[in-house]
Amino acid sequence: MAQDKRQVDAITARDVDFAQWYTDVCKKAELIDYTSVKGMFIYRPYGYALWENIQAELDRRFKATGHENVYLPVLIPESLLQKEKDHVEGFAPECAWVTVGGSEKLEDRCAIRPTSETLFCEHYANIIHSWRDLPKLYNQWCSVLRWEKTSRPFLRHREFLWQEGHTMHATAEEAREETMQMLNIYADFMENVLAMPVIKGRKTDKEKFNGAEETYTVECMMHDHKALQAGTSHYFGDGFAKAFDITFTGKDNQPHYPHQTSWGVSTRMIGGIIMTHGDDNGLVLPPRIAPTQAVVIPVAAHKPGVLEAAASLRDRLNAAGVRSKMDDSDNSPGWKFAEYEMKGVPVRVEIGPKDMEKEQCVIARRDTGEKITVALAELESAVKALLDHIHDNLYAMALKNREDNTFDIQTPEEAKAIVEGKGGFLRSKWCGSLECELAMKERAGVSSRCMPLVQSGTEGTCPVCGRKCTTDIYWGVAY
Amino acid sequence: MAQDKRQVDAITARDVDFAQWYTDVCKKAELIDYTSVKGMFIYRPYGYALWENIQAELDRRFKATGHENVYLPVLIPESLLQKEKDHVEGFAPECAWVTVGGSEKLEDRCAIRPTSETLFCEHYANIIHSWRDLPKLYNQWCSVLRWEKTSRPFLRHREFLWQEGHTMHATAEEAREETMQMLNIYADFMENVLAMPVIKGRKTDKEKFNGAEETYTVECMMHDHKALQAGTSHYFGDGFAKAFDITFTGKDNQPHYPHQTSWGVSTRMIGGIIMTHGDDNGLVLPPRIAPTQAVVIPVAAHKPGVLEAAASLRDRLNAAGVRSKMDDSDNSPGWKFAEYEMKGVPVRVEIGPKDMEKEQCVIARRDTGEKITVALAELESAVKALLDHIHDNLYAMALKNREDNTFDIQTPEEAKAIVEGKGGFLRSKWCGSLECELAMKERAGVSSRCMPLVQSGTEGTCPVCGRKCTTDIYWGVAY
Repeated sequence: MAQDKRQVDAITARDVDFAQWYTDVCKKAELIDYTSVKGMFIYRPYGYALWENIQAELDRRFKATGHENVYLPVLIPESLLQKEKDHVEGFAPECAWVTVGGSEKLEDRCAIRPTSETLFCEHYANIIHSWRDLPKLYNQWCSVLRWEKTSRPFLRHREFLWQEGHTMHATAEEAREETMQMLNIYADFMENVLAMPVIKGRKTDKEKFNGAEETYTVECMMHDHKALQAGTSHYFGDGFAKAFDITFTGKDNQPHYPHQTSWGVSTRMIGGIIMTHGDDNGLVLPPRIAPTQAVVIPVAAHKPGVLEAAASLRDRLNAAGVRSKMDDSDNSPGWKFAEYEMKGVPVRVEIGPKDMEKEQCVIARRDTGEKITVALAELESAVKALLDHIHDNLYAMALKNREDNTFDIQTPEEAKAIVEGKGGFLRSKWCGSLECELAMKERAGVSSRCMPLVQSGTEGTCPVCGRKCTTDIYWGVAY
Repeated sequence: MAQDKRQVDAITARDVDFAQWYTDVCKKAELIDYTSVKGMFIYRPYGYALWENIQAELDRRFKATGHENVYLPVLIPESLLQKEKDHVEGFAPECAWVTVGGSEKLEDRCAIRPTSETLFCEHYANIIHSWRDLPKLYNQWCSVLRWEKTSRPFLRHREFLWQEGHTMHATAEEAREETMQMLNIYADFMENVLAMPVIKGRKTDKEKFNGAEETYTVECMMHDHKALQAGTSHYFGDGFAKAFDITFTGKDNQPHYPHQTSWGVSTRMIGGIIMTHGDDNGLVLPPRIAPTQAVVIPVAAHKPGVLEAAASLRDRLNAAGVRSKMDDSDNSPGWKFAEYEMKGVPVRVEIGPKDMEKEQCVIARRDTGEKITVALAELESAVKALLDHIHDNLYAMALKNREDNTFDIQTPEEAKAIVEGKGGFLRSKWCGSLECELAMKERAGVSSRCMPLVQSGTEGTCPVCGRKCTTDIYWGVAY
């Protein structure tokens, strides 16, 4: 039991040092390992399993809305990347460049893709000719590279895993609908699967994607009251189509430029899960994405029949669609309890000789630590109900954290006092000018997070210039 | 209907120019597209869907045998790649090198992974300490880069998709068992899912993987009688473990080196599917991997009720677990027939007003072209049975092709006459010397394919040196 204590002690408390707590959890829960390549991480089995579950859930939603998966090359020739001016200006400074292939020095060096708009456009120019070829609703699961100066597990990798959707439409209206549809799919997924409440909104011109006309975002508040941009959906208009000379013959027999979108989420959502739900005992996983939803621990496992009884509970739960495992290792029950707490397994089922006599088992929930005794006959229904309760509770706690830490502010100084105190989301009106946005950064240390899609419609004043305006906006400190 | 004729005409016949036929199918069936990056291809939705189905089938088999997925970085520092001598000699000449990251010139340039043994070893050195940490059974789905001079869709890409399993075991015996287990999983998958008969065998030292002690392979014969190495499984012994200083404390409390395997298959299997089963009308897909197993074509679709009837057949088939779609586009039925032939959809279901009257539909199979009339009430059972028949028939035809074109040879000259004629697999004894293997290449233009696991045990003579020996070996011309 001494061992158990040691493992738990090794985690820094959230209130002591949130950044250290975060790194501790990533390492101790075996999500990640470091490598000799600076800024690159290994997604270990438990971390990658989270991504696999995220992929399965999202991929199903993408396919149900008519999207198809493709795979495009990892390399982009510099000449191709340069075709859209805003885009290359945004990405070129943080590309990794392949300059030698085999023994040959490349004439046109290639970037490892930081994002694939340019390659998709080159392909679309080949395959889009007629209105019959539209829409094209493509998605790609892959990794991308951005040569960032600092790194942090899941939040900022030089290489990270993501999906990038790239679609082409006959009309601007259809492309705008797609942009919003995908934003809504992200929001629904984050709230109903990851138990992370989101604010859906539009980015300011300063914060939008390089080359996009409009960028929409889902913003989440972490436990430390900082913001995480968890996913984005972009409307491009026909800017890339013009740069790449993509045209189609319409039903009117005339040439037209198609209208484009792109949208993406990445493994940084895993960072969001950790920082939204984790506690001082480690990871707390939302049940619908947890690789293991229930772990069965035999107590006094050497006593006759205990291992068999535990295995039977595991098998019954798996048969009922609950992802379950049994730990029959020779570690002590206390050690196992601490290990699965650290790994954030939502439900722990304990069974020992006394429970077997009474035809019952003990069920502990990770989020609150509560234990209940359940008749063996009701195992499946009890665990399934509990998984839903845990989801709802995690969501409610995260929402309360956001609501308790969102403040209406009138001046940059008021904003500054809050973010230098306990932090939070700051809500105000905004006149729409870049100057005032920059002044908020300068004077309060916050960036604009988004203009929420749900606008109050009331009139107020911009906290910087004092002009009358109606636009609601959120400010904050972001990961 | 003129259009339909045009599309079919566009394919070169297999007997006229097999290489051109292959390229035509890859393009016309919309499996791939070319890009401005030489030697790199786009996996289009239909081609990628094949890979997704392959992934799903294999991933299930990997997980059922205890393997876990991970993701390691795309970049390998040159210094790390150099740690195992044979390995770096094999791969360094065909690496793509990243020399610049952002604005910074890298001191230790990085290869885009050509394979990940070195990164796995670095990670294993971090996480393997005790016998309790073994075995490690990891797999990675990713792309790899090899800067080849020539390229061919699916068969030879500078970047291709694959899986690479990397495992570590406490004993040599356990690692050898893993090597054979994975070879058998590949063979079972290829025969029972891809309908591709395989020869399981061991590679000669000349043909084995760089750094491996033993390489095992599954070899398939293509329609043109050439060989395709469709998958490999390697036993490494403890060579990499020593090079990377990976040790564990055994139950005996002493330090030991673990024993290692790796195994992989790639998208070149898709090339194998095309070249094994395709015909002069295009692709012929094995049913268990086909993205669409049955396509429903409404005939006289403008007549009342036809579209609804066709949609209902599609829905019934999907509900029965048959991947099905309906084509209700305004193309002619003849055009559609040609299109789905080109795409190799195993079963076509036709329904028109006359069929509706008689409560029947017409079912055509892609492999033989036969049509049968089926009562609507028996749709599901008839289509499912037909899919199994098609699988069996494709397998039987491929096996017959191999058996009819495998020849016992006594001399290199005999071998040369066959490969310069209609080609084939050449079976002989082999004395085991590199000289004789090189002489077969020199004098007959063939490479050793494998020493089959099932050996006859008889004595014979080496076709080159004439020495007495017992080892059976296959020779051939390979993709």
